[in-house]
Amino acid sequence: MNAHKSRERVAFQGERGAFSEEAAVRLLGEQISVVPRPTFEALFSTIAEGAADAILAPIENSLAGSVHRCYDLLLDSSLVITGEVIHPIVHNVIGNRGSSLESLASVESHPVALAQCQNFFRAHPSIKRIAAEDTAGSVRAVLEAGDPRRAAIAARRAAEIYGGQILQEHVEDHRENYTRFLLLRPAAEAEAGGDKLSLAIQLAHKPGSLHRALGIFSGRGINLSKIESRPIPGRPWTYRFYLDLQTSLDASETQQALEELKSCTETVRVLGCYPAYAGAAPGHKSTEGGKA
Amino acid sequence: MNAHKSRERVAFQGERGAFSEEAAVRLLGEQISVVPRPTFEALFSTIAEGAADAILAPIENSLAGSVHRCYDLLLDSSLVITGEVIHPIVHNVIGNRGSSLESLASVESHPVALAQCQNFFRAHPSIKRIAAEDTAGSVRAVLEAGDPRRAAIAARRAAEIYGGQILQEHVEDHRENYTRFLLLRPAAEAEAGGDKLSLAIQLAHKPGSLHRALGIFSGRGINLSKIESRPIPGRPWTYRFYLDLQTSLDASETQQALEELKSCTETVRVLGCYPAYAGAAPGHKSTEGGKA
Repeated sequence: MNAHKSRERVAFQGERGAFSEEAAVRLLGEQISVVPRPTFEALFSTIAEGAADAILAPIENSLAGSVHRCYDLLLDSSLVITGEVIHPIVHNVIGNRGSSLESLASVESHPVALAQCQNFFRAHPSIKRIAAEDTAGSVRAVLEAGDPRRAAIAARRAAEIYGGQILQEHVEDHRENYTRFLLLRPAAEAEAGGDKLSLAIQLAHKPGSLHRALGIFSGRGINLSKIESRPIPGRPWTYRFYLDLQTSLDASETQQALEELKSCTETVRVLGCYPAYAGAAPGHKSTEGGKA
Repeated sequence: MNAHKSRERVAFQGERGAFSEEAAVRLLGEQISVVPRPTFEALFSTIAEGAADAILAPIENSLAGSVHRCYDLLLDSSLVITGEVIHPIVHNVIGNRGSSLESLASVESHPVALAQCQNFFRAHPSIKRIAAEDTAGSVRAVLEAGDPRRAAIAARRAAEIYGGQILQEHVEDHRENYTRFLLLRPAAEAEAGGDKLSLAIQLAHKPGSLHRALGIFSGRGINLSKIESRPIPGRPWTYRFYLDLQTSLDASETQQALEELKSCTETVRVLGCYPAYAGAAPGHKSTEGGKA
């Protein structure tokens, strides 16, 4: 899944240097032009506004779970999934050049990042934790201030972009912290040949309806790599299910399965068929496996 | 699911006045003694330390998804689920008494809360957003400072506890923001009579194994109200599934189903059998429905 334009514009949520930008470059390479957006809502409108060719949206995190808000915005859009990347969330203490851990009085970052680095703060009780709105934005603020007593916790890329120095790397408590991002494009630009199919299906309240729906795939030897149910607000007794399947949309058994699925579900929405991420995130070979 | 002791000690993650405390009181009543804890890790050790009789842990949010970290800590513990509550996340602007929206120069809160109140900040462009580590903690800080130009965004309960004034209620952008909390106790204190059963099962990589496992329940007319898959770190090709079923552990068909399930899964762990939450959170009747 490499960029098909030399300077493709790819939007992400966050400031320059965010984990999302790091993930975009991991998936598409350094030649892309990155477009930062402050919110998920702003992110999902960048293509319609003509400001980006593709967007990269976080869809699930190993500690925090699925990002339902992004699923909702994807369903409200006409975009399709054309790629995915699984990116480890590696936290670094980033300060001004010439600074050191010993000189620090405070470390700032998004509270979620601060909370993921408790061992670091326990090991350095004299360093004050300061909450900020953004991880990469706190690196920018620390470097603008030029104060050697201040540092921030953020992605390695933030140090590269703002010219900071990594004072300590891998300060996250849990190495098993990774985020899966989806690359989204206008439906007309979807390419054939993907091996992973994402669906959103809606089932009415009938006993055994999910069992029947899954049987349509398992009976054809199609493996499931993710399933998640979600109640639909305002529609009692109706559930939406997100399914990831290890199959190609072009395969005849997939087409047959989708036809049969339509006969027993309220709605079937193909979110995209795309190459499963092949680069292994540390400790995450399991995400490439699957079963139905 | 009322407290069975007059001053039962219930621990939650966050500061006094947090949404978790609000949820604990919603479920168990005002007579409980609340025990605030700074982190999920500290929360899950309060019972073993003798500092609490029960803990209330967030397990899923309608915008942010399942809290995998709490699922992990639950699996690592010997606690069981004995109750649940679905609590709406209603944000309020809380200031000092005598303050007003017009007098505000800044509003502080956890960045996730700030991000959920974008319409409020768009309507009041002169008010500066300030990140803080905690929602309720920012109310305490604002009231300690006594500055009428400062306010915080937090739960109504934070205003009650710290003596603040609600300057504007319901400033959240999305009314469909609710969190489901689980009440956890030592296994010996689990009571019979629940109608909702939560399981964690582990399936090896065999085509159709999930389909078969679900058939064990749907064949007995047992409905599913939640399903979620999760790759198991370091164990390629093996998945864990979280299932919520509308059934009682005492029922003979449930016992038969669990026996049959053991024959086709690597592990089956009963997380608890408890009364499904009956109080309706706004717009959330759907969470009481289900199907398999």
